[in-house]
Amino acid sequence: MNAPITPMPDVQGSVDVRNLPIDRVGVRGLRYPIRLAVSQADPNQGSVGEFSLSVALPAHQKGTHMSRFVALLEAMHEAGDVLEPSRMAQLGSDMVRLLEASAGSIEFHAPVFVKKHAPVSGLASLMDYELSMVVDCEPSAAPAVSLEVKVPVKSLCPCSKEISDYGAHNQRSQVRVRARLASGSSLTVLELIRAVETQASCELWGMLKRPDEKYVTERAYDNAKFVEDLVRDVALSVKALPGVVSAEIEAENFESIHNHSAWARLSV
Amino acid sequence: MNAPITPMPDVQGSVDVRNLPIDRVGVRGLRYPIRLAVSQADPNQGSVGEFSLSVALPAHQKGTHMSRFVALLEAMHEAGDVLEPSRMAQLGSDMVRLLEASAGSIEFHAPVFVKKHAPVSGLASLMDYELSMVVDCEPSAAPAVSLEVKVPVKSLCPCSKEISDYGAHNQRSQVRVRARLASGSSLTVLELIRAVETQASCELWGMLKRPDEKYVTERAYDNAKFVEDLVRDVALSVKALPGVVSAEIEAENFESIHNHSAWARLSV
Amino acid sequence: MNAPITPMPDVQGSVDVRNLPIDRVGVRGLRYPIRLAVSQADPNQGSVGEFSLSVALPAHQKGTHMSRFVALLEAMHEAGDVLEPSRMAQLGSDMVRLLEASAGSIEFHAPVFVKKHAPVSGLASLMDYELSMVVDCEPSAAPAVSLEVKVPVKSLCPCSKEISDYGAHNQRSQVRVRARLASGSSLTVLELIRAVETQASCELWGMLKRPDEKYVTERAYDNAKFVEDLVRDVALSVKALPGVVSAEIEAENFESIHNHSAWARLSV
Amino acid sequence: MNAPITPMPDVQGSVDVRNLPIDRVGVRGLRYPIRLAVSQADPNQGSVGEFSLSVALPAHQKGTHMSRFVALLEAMHEAGDVLEPSRMAQLGSDMVRLLEASAGSIEFHAPVFVKKHAPVSGLASLMDYELSMVVDCEPSAAPAVSLEVKVPVKSLCPCSKEISDYGAHNQRSQVRVRARLASGSSLTVLELIRAVETQASCELWGMLKRPDEKYVTERAYDNAKFVEDLVRDVALSVKALPGVVSAEIEAENFESIHNHSAWARLSV
Repeated sequence: MNAPITPMPDVQGSVDVRNLPIDRVGVRGLRYPIRLAVSQADPNQGSVGEFSLSVALPAHQKGTHMSRFVALLEAMHEAGDVLEPSRMAQLGSDMVRLLEASAGSIEFHAPVFVKKHAPVSGLASLMDYELSMVVDCEPSAAPAVSLEVKVPVKSLCPCSKEISDYGAHNQRSQVRVRARLASGSSLTVLELIRAVETQASCELWGMLKRPDEKYVTERAYDNAKFVEDLVRDVALSVKALPGVVSAEIEAENFESIHNHSAWARLSV
Repeated sequence: MNAPITPMPDVQGSVDVRNLPIDRVGVRGLRYPIRLAVSQADPNQGSVGEFSLSVALPAHQKGTHMSRFVALLEAMHEAGDVLEPSRMAQLGSDMVRLLEASAGSIEFHAPVFVKKHAPVSGLASLMDYELSMVVDCEPSAAPAVSLEVKVPVKSLCPCSKEISDYGAHNQRSQVRVRARLASGSSLTVLELIRAVETQASCELWGMLKRPDEKYVTERAYDNAKFVEDLVRDVALSVKALPGVVSAEIEAENFESIHNHSAWARLSV
Repeated sequence: MNAPITPMPDVQGSVDVRNLPIDRVGVRGLRYPIRLAVSQADPNQGSVGEFSLSVALPAHQKGTHMSRFVALLEAMHEAGDVLEPSRMAQLGSDMVRLLEASAGSIEFHAPVFVKKHAPVSGLASLMDYELSMVVDCEPSAAPAVSLEVKVPVKSLCPCSKEISDYGAHNQRSQVRVRARLASGSSLTVLELIRAVETQASCELWGMLKRPDEKYVTERAYDNAKFVEDLVRDVALSVKALPGVVSAEIEAENFESIHNHSAWARLSV
Repeated sequence: MNAPITPMPDVQGSVDVRNLPIDRVGVRGLRYPIRLAVSQADPNQGSVGEFSLSVALPAHQKGTHMSRFVALLEAMHEAGDVLEPSRMAQLGSDMVRLLEASAGSIEFHAPVFVKKHAPVSGLASLMDYELSMVVDCEPSAAPAVSLEVKVPVKSLCPCSKEISDYGAHNQRSQVRVRARLASGSSLTVLELIRAVETQASCELWGMLKRPDEKYVTERAYDNAKFVEDLVRDVALSVKALPGVVSAEIEAENFESIHNHSAWARLSV
């Protein structure tokens, strides 16, 4: 351990003659513990992120230095930093400088939790969501940060409700929103989640007692939405959030009458 | 290509001194095209199987000969054989002989399709299911073959229906049945699938027109079942099939009011 | 079955007032048996495809008609058609017309098999690959078809080989190539696969005897490549194929010295 | 919120007449933040667990009360408890009492991290592993707790090394050990991980500099092992740990010369 390190040939640093720049090269599937800011009330939640880090490689360079990507996460972890959008932008800038690159991208996804109170009983439990954050660094431009959430909700079919004498088919759906943030945006993860949940036939909770279950059932029936309605209503809701430059919205209904999904996608 | 093969040391065949027999050793994740018998009307359907093949290794032997497992599937493929339960039993016997083993197991899973007619319009489309077949070969016993199907269905919650003024939450569910077959059983894949579908709140179809959707919605509402009801009713239905020695039944409801599943399992 | 169909309200056809066109709406995760042309010698191979089909929806229209997507695949299946690039283009055109849409996309992925002969023993076995095909239909343009293959190969690290007294770390890698085809291109799936395999440290086979294993081991050692080398060499190889307009190449090394991957991506 | 709860019918509590007890019924795929003890030096590491909780249901009872499973995790989370084996046993006992059941099981899996120092440079980085813990509660018996780790390692093929003039194929492997713990066992997660890593051709690190990469390459070449050697050596190593009653060991090599895995399993 800790033996003196003898000089070794730097194969990656040698010259490449194929004349092909590489858009991105780096590591993928690298897991690290992280700290996340979910809301003002929950500014430092622990989670586990799975990272992809990569940089552009010019045509003349044979290879990049993979260990530096890991060193970057290790340093952030040691410092105990919270991965807010501004810290993510910094991480992107640090990476392109450390790797001596002109451009680069970092993306991670991680589970986040929100404490929710059941709609009638008021009982508390946690709901889990999937968060992603992305930073893209291009030459002569500020790092561009996007926030993405995957929010599970309930959808109830307006057609089934209209044509049936009683009942209506409903199912779990997943809404994915990727929002490009303005520089300095203070949009929180929770605000983005709520902009989705409020537009569903009904939102979900981890724990429901019978009076809550009655509420969810009737609320969804009163609030039927196609997958097309979901993406449109969420698009309007997300576009109205402060600090959102643009957004891509996708919804997938795990249809309860088929073995396939209905889905839709739009950009605003 | 086809150069003369020079003798090489057989490392796998050397003697092991750790005195530890190995329960199973072999290959996993090996994909091959296969032929399947789904029903008497559809006795030779093409699909793609993902196989696991393994044998017992005695304490004194260092390693098994992995290439022989692949050779076994290649020979079956070349012959164009249909993987019925009796052929699966034969494949198990052939494997333990070819590998000079006392015991062994083969398992594969593959998608299968059934042409179904929508309940009102009568329109035809295909439904996909996941089929598995397993053979276990033990010393001094006939090969034991099990058939497994994973059947997607609709479940509608009796509690939600009972307590709500209107509507009821429902969702896609998956029922898994693994049936140990009697030697010589002529049970078909389709019979096992139907023994599940008939017990659900409602079965699924690939294509439904509006009158069909009305039927499915009302049929499920008239036929509310907990996940506990599903496994019990399917257990009774499967146990009554000819040629079934025993069965394990599992149902999972992808709850439309939560971000987790309700599930149950029983053996008969 | 086949009861007379009573008129029902067409909720999907009603007018939408949110003034938001939808980029794509349709079905996802729909599995159907398909026929594929892998090479001139293997023009009609059966497989199982998982499809996504979607169309653009104008701002004034509330919803699309989901059952028509399934009807499209059912008709193709009944006709027994082989899903060559030209048939895929036709399927795209048929879809936008049937759905009365201005634009749309179809994508499927499916396993395909190629019979390969081991490099020394010459023994035959099948190798499995993942194929995708995509068609994008935009107004006033011919359908654009892309062919994608995921090819598993072996990569051996040049740095590890250079700095070590003996041995070199190597691992399984996956190379993904998505090639945009010229209209009328007769490029085959096998040609695209071979353009990848010939550029790896060594290609893979399903079955190898000892002399083959010696060949693979030494061939990879003689032919060390970084993940950067892989994407560059494959890019040159794919770009030289007739009928390829452009291509995206991605390679991922499932590093044997880490619990994460090295990867690279470039476009030509 | 917090409205008065009106009495509602208890459908789950009604009497069932099918005369079929259910082995296990409960929830699955429920995610909650957890605290884990990884080693004496790291007794309180945060992670995210995915839980399955279930109980036996007697023949006369129609359904279980699903919300109580969630309440159990919520209470544990609120208390900030560390999920050590003894706490897991307690959780099992609490669950069967809360659900008024005779038997039940809890299982979770979660990522855990260990700080490791590269073998030559001594540089620190984190390695991720997958941990599972299981408790089974049966009537008139103490809760039985098992600890499972999935440990990624490097394996190098003895046959390839022996028959080749230079080089040897190697790859990432995953070793899974499930150890049944004696009541009161103080075995740590890290001890179980180390009992695997020390038996591999070489262990893995998150970050390696060139001198470390040379070490790993040569160490693996000096220490060739079949998948059969891996399970045997790990079995001996795990069986010698204090507090282990029995263990199941499984190893899977993601072969770098094939597109399938070699694997083996044994119980001690």
